[in-house]
Amino acid sequence: MTTTVTIGLLHPGEMGSAVGAAARAGGARVLWSAEGRGRSTHERAAAAGLEDAGPLAALVARSDVVVSVCPPHAALAVALAVAREGFRGTFVDGNAVSPATAREIAGTVEKQGATFVDGGIIGLPPTRRGTTRLYLSGAEAPRIAALFAQGPLEAIALEGGPGAASALKMAYAAYTKGHAALLLAIRALATAESVDQALLAEWRLSQPELSGRSEDAARGTARKAWRFVGEMEEIAATFTGAGLPGGFHEAAAEVYRRLAHYKDTPGAPPVAEVARAIATRPPAR
Amino acid sequence: MTTTVTIGLLHPGEMGSAVGAAARAGGARVLWSAEGRGRSTHERAAAAGLEDAGPLAALVARSDVVVSVCPPHAALAVALAVAREGFRGTFVDGNAVSPATAREIAGTVEKQGATFVDGGIIGLPPTRRGTTRLYLSGAEAPRIAALFAQGPLEAIALEGGPGAASALKMAYAAYTKGHAALLLAIRALATAESVDQALLAEWRLSQPELSGRSEDAARGTARKAWRFVGEMEEIAATFTGAGLPGGFHEAAAEVYRRLAHYKDTPGAPPVAEVARAIATRPPAR
Repeated sequence: MTTTVTIGLLHPGEMGSAVGAAARAGGARVLWSAEGRGRSTHERAAAAGLEDAGPLAALVARSDVVVSVCPPHAALAVALAVAREGFRGTFVDGNAVSPATAREIAGTVEKQGATFVDGGIIGLPPTRRGTTRLYLSGAEAPRIAALFAQGPLEAIALEGGPGAASALKMAYAAYTKGHAALLLAIRALATAESVDQALLAEWRLSQPELSGRSEDAARGTARKAWRFVGEMEEIAATFTGAGLPGGFHEAAAEVYRRLAHYKDTPGAPPVAEVARAIATRPPAR
Repeated sequence: MTTTVTIGLLHPGEMGSAVGAAARAGGARVLWSAEGRGRSTHERAAAAGLEDAGPLAALVARSDVVVSVCPPHAALAVALAVAREGFRGTFVDGNAVSPATAREIAGTVEKQGATFVDGGIIGLPPTRRGTTRLYLSGAEAPRIAALFAQGPLEAIALEGGPGAASALKMAYAAYTKGHAALLLAIRALATAESVDQALLAEWRLSQPELSGRSEDAARGTARKAWRFVGEMEEIAATFTGAGLPGGFHEAAAEVYRRLAHYKDTPGAPPVAEVARAIATRPPAR
């Protein structure tokens, strides 16, 4: 006899719905809570085969495992809401948060008797195995990883306690998103100082890949920049928490903050426009 | 009848002596001032065919053009010393300083009646044409560029007044040295959080060039880090002066500050050692 594990998935955004579908492929039943969610979330949840449990209290009551996949700035609030419903199963935080925030989330859910598993997702929303990994750490990490043994998401249990999976995610995104922000900030500087054409000419001679990379950075980040701000702040906190300088990612947060208005715009903007936006837009704090 | 131009070169470090040799290849007579300089500087100056003018006052009195090539933190002091000797020729600042520092240097030398040309060198000390460029800006930039028409250093006069050549140099080094510092800071973070092996495993899957690039960054920067600190501070000031976040390069300055003790060490240190040094060394401020 096998027991079906019931997973509560908060929330079925692009990544969350893909994680839910991956858990279903592993044999789990996956619930979500439609309360207060918009139409595109309903559509993604339905397409992923997730069941609407109704209000959060009902999802929590029926779930053995709750998996949180949300923007980093919302991660603590999601954990708090689940804890308030008296959740005593296993809470998996899969978000791009600092080890310190992960530990704060751990404390929040453990106070109510739940078990905490730290997680970090690297890669795009998975559609086939090999593109995306869910790193997990904490005592229950191997048990959670086993839930994804089939399906498109590869789950890897790490050595080290809660915090290790978050630290890995932070270190990884520190490069990908920090590097893109650095390139865009440099194009913005060259634009502000009227040496952008001279910089591109020099790059053609000595760094021939950078012009294209800065174009890719503009295309790949501008419309998602609004949700990178919180992640860059978590990364900066991870650096300072480890006694390292947080400035790279404080600056990256500011770059993405100046691009937040590209949310929901149609079509990706060209790099020259993005550089001007960074150079001329006042901080939106 | 051609007139030989006399250039005073301050100072014949590795880059300075190569610039002096390049000016000689263009037909100029090149002086330096041995006063207070060490044996390796003497050797480099002799190898480059530079003539010792004696004290700085003598070099200034005999030079049509003074070219300053020194660590960024010394650039203003060199200009001030030349101005104090009453120099009225053309002063070329070839250093990695912000446009604001370049303008301060301009004001310093122009007050004594000299003409200012802004410069920025991109590339290694040149031994053959095509590897290294001396960007110049300001009214006299084309005349100075012409002095390098022959020889291994390509001189390029930019549009835009004094400050343009410095801005270009800053934007260029913002990537090369900022990127290396970012990679090393990330290896330091992963080391501090005990996820370095997990990060390298993930990089092998999804960013296969980064492991090698971080090794190159350690090898290529550790022993020069002491003189990158001032350059990173100039770049940070360039960003903030343009209304952009200076944090990337404030953080890069801190990374290099923690590596300053590698000055004059034999052999390049491996990246794991460099990462530990960054993660464990207290700031040397």
